[in-house]
Amino acid sequence: MDYQYADRLKNLEGNAIRDIFKLLSRPNIISFAGGMPATALLPTTHFLDLTKEVLASKDAFALLQYGATEGYAPLFESAFEYAQRFGVTGVSKDNALVISGGQQGIDLTSKLFLNKGDTVLVENPTYLAALQIFQTYEAAIIGVDSEDDGLNIQDLTDKIKKHNPKFLYLVPTFSNPTGKELSLEKRDAIAEITAKYGVMVLEDEPYSELRFEGERLPSIKSFDKCGNVLFNMSFSKTIAPGIRVGLIIGEKEVIRKLTIAKQGTDVHTSTLSQAVVDKFLRYGYIDKGIEQARPVYKAKKDAMIQAIEKSFPKEAKYTNPKGGMFIWVELPTGIDTVAMFAEAVELGVAYVIGTPFFADGSGHNTLRLNYSNATESQIAQGIKVLGELIASKIK
Amino acid sequence: MDYQYADRLKNLEGNAIRDIFKLLSRPNIISFAGGMPATALLPTTHFLDLTKEVLASKDAFALLQYGATEGYAPLFESAFEYAQRFGVTGVSKDNALVISGGQQGIDLTSKLFLNKGDTVLVENPTYLAALQIFQTYEAAIIGVDSEDDGLNIQDLTDKIKKHNPKFLYLVPTFSNPTGKELSLEKRDAIAEITAKYGVMVLEDEPYSELRFEGERLPSIKSFDKCGNVLFNMSFSKTIAPGIRVGLIIGEKEVIRKLTIAKQGTDVHTSTLSQAVVDKFLRYGYIDKGIEQARPVYKAKKDAMIQAIEKSFPKEAKYTNPKGGMFIWVELPTGIDTVAMFAEAVELGVAYVIGTPFFADGSGHNTLRLNYSNATESQIAQGIKVLGELIASKIK
Repeated sequence: MDYQYADRLKNLEGNAIRDIFKLLSRPNIISFAGGMPATALLPTTHFLDLTKEVLASKDAFALLQYGATEGYAPLFESAFEYAQRFGVTGVSKDNALVISGGQQGIDLTSKLFLNKGDTVLVENPTYLAALQIFQTYEAAIIGVDSEDDGLNIQDLTDKIKKHNPKFLYLVPTFSNPTGKELSLEKRDAIAEITAKYGVMVLEDEPYSELRFEGERLPSIKSFDKCGNVLFNMSFSKTIAPGIRVGLIIGEKEVIRKLTIAKQGTDVHTSTLSQAVVDKFLRYGYIDKGIEQARPVYKAKKDAMIQAIEKSFPKEAKYTNPKGGMFIWVELPTGIDTVAMFAEAVELGVAYVIGTPFFADGSGHNTLRLNYSNATESQIAQGIKVLGELIASKIK
Repeated sequence: MDYQYADRLKNLEGNAIRDIFKLLSRPNIISFAGGMPATALLPTTHFLDLTKEVLASKDAFALLQYGATEGYAPLFESAFEYAQRFGVTGVSKDNALVISGGQQGIDLTSKLFLNKGDTVLVENPTYLAALQIFQTYEAAIIGVDSEDDGLNIQDLTDKIKKHNPKFLYLVPTFSNPTGKELSLEKRDAIAEITAKYGVMVLEDEPYSELRFEGERLPSIKSFDKCGNVLFNMSFSKTIAPGIRVGLIIGEKEVIRKLTIAKQGTDVHTSTLSQAVVDKFLRYGYIDKGIEQARPVYKAKKDAMIQAIEKSFPKEAKYTNPKGGMFIWVELPTGIDTVAMFAEAVELGVAYVIGTPFFADGSGHNTLRLNYSNATESQIAQGIKVLGELIASKIK
């Protein structure tokens, strides 16, 4: 059989991170790849207790039956209260759709807005799976320059004018892959400029509650002038990724269209999972978990920064995030992190190569390190090995 | 904000069935709409016990962590054993992808094969949400004539030659919406003809285990000559729909591509749900549930057929299925079931209008009745009301 695939998937290889998952099953490999929360922090006991509770309730049958595409009604209430911390207020159930993890929010937004050839603007670099999704919709992806405090507003404005994009995608807080935080001023400016030019914004916030330094900033959504901002919330890093529950918030009209788009993909998100997430929110277990995770992640991040300071050559540049899960490393331009990857794995250390995070496939000298799911001693050991490998490339 | 949607969703309204769900919340309405398993049969106790078991096991953390897109490894083993009853044998883990319900199998297959303007062949009438999905991919949808024993093979052959379709979609056993069963000979013939012309087949089998008469027939997949058949399995009607777990089986190369397509939609299906489904299969609870459901559904179907015989005018034609969840009704051509729907709801009875099941929007005189989730007394009462309404249209 000669399979005749659609153009959208013809040239798409598997996502670099997902494929790395397979390497992780090798014994003794120290992985700074992936973006997984610390396995030891996953709330298995709460999960069990809450599942018992909801399955013993009078709702039990409804949780196993088909549900509304929109989502499980009680979850709207609890999620909206949770969203207030991001300055997302004044929303009603018509403003939200429960999604099967934050990634589905990116997929559905693309499905709703992108014709073949339409432009999407992204921060450069940005979440690689988002780029993969935009490719699947055969979009033209244009990277916007980024500074220490996030997007370069002038470059954003220029590229909006030049490319007339359908939407801007970004991870404002503790960005994947850089760990950077978008400043308050720029959040307001982005809401203003995109409203002026009629560009949608997909604000993706999976990491923002994993903050171990500084004060929480209001979301871009909180500055929304005209209903052009979609706020994509994930519970993967704050409760558990394995259950695939998130929520996207936006204007009623757009949410209705996203709901129709979701009808045709997976009908609805597991109702049982939604009910358990609802209880996590109502009982404050999500915040308990976040409070527990913050010092753990801070300690891991500090351990990684210390190890980098100690063993990376001085030519290596790296971010020092105030939260989230990632440190972004830029090596001297001569070093190809793709070529180096096999050597690193051979030495027992995995990272994510930087190029898939760039819309234009640049960044050959960059890599992403994840610190959330390795022990401090693995971090010390792995970074030492990686530092020596990098040093060997610099003569 | 003037929202600039993609063409694929511009003209798409919500799916007729999903919107009907909202009506169902009206008190005292008797619903023959939807396609829900009997709520009282949903295995809440097994679900609770198995969730406890898997979350108390050493796997618990892995169930809440990110998992492989391909699926939870033990589920492949148990699902392959289950699939043998359909004549699906000789498969290994590279031949399957776990999906978030059967509907995702339709969506991913479309994503993988359909460029804008490509042709999909479907049985006429067929599952309306499948048609909605194909519309989302901007496909040309062509209906193939159907007889009592399923697709008209001559019409299929003619339309394959004429339209050069990417794939044929069908629900061979106890079809949605007609309840018809595709004969053994035609299963073989479809495998043969599609192989000859290089057409993929998406064989969707959510209902086949809900058989209360006759012997199980082997799947079209079991006659697969060249790796062109995808076998789409759902556990929504045999375990529970609310948890969204299914499995799609096919050639390794196609499954790999489908896996890449799924990476970009929801990363993976809830691992906890997969683990519970795996236990349902291993412990034989799925078959216990099926054995329990069959006589219940048969009794409901018999009650509906009896009530139809008693109160529908003799001009109404209807199917008498050997399994599944649906009876298909064809009224005299003058009667418009769309116009009649509001009256029926006013009288306290809901059905699904027939037109959305037709690729060409025909079938104005048809409707679908679901008997699986109403009590026998509701069936007697609702069909009586509906019969009187229909009779009032025939002078």
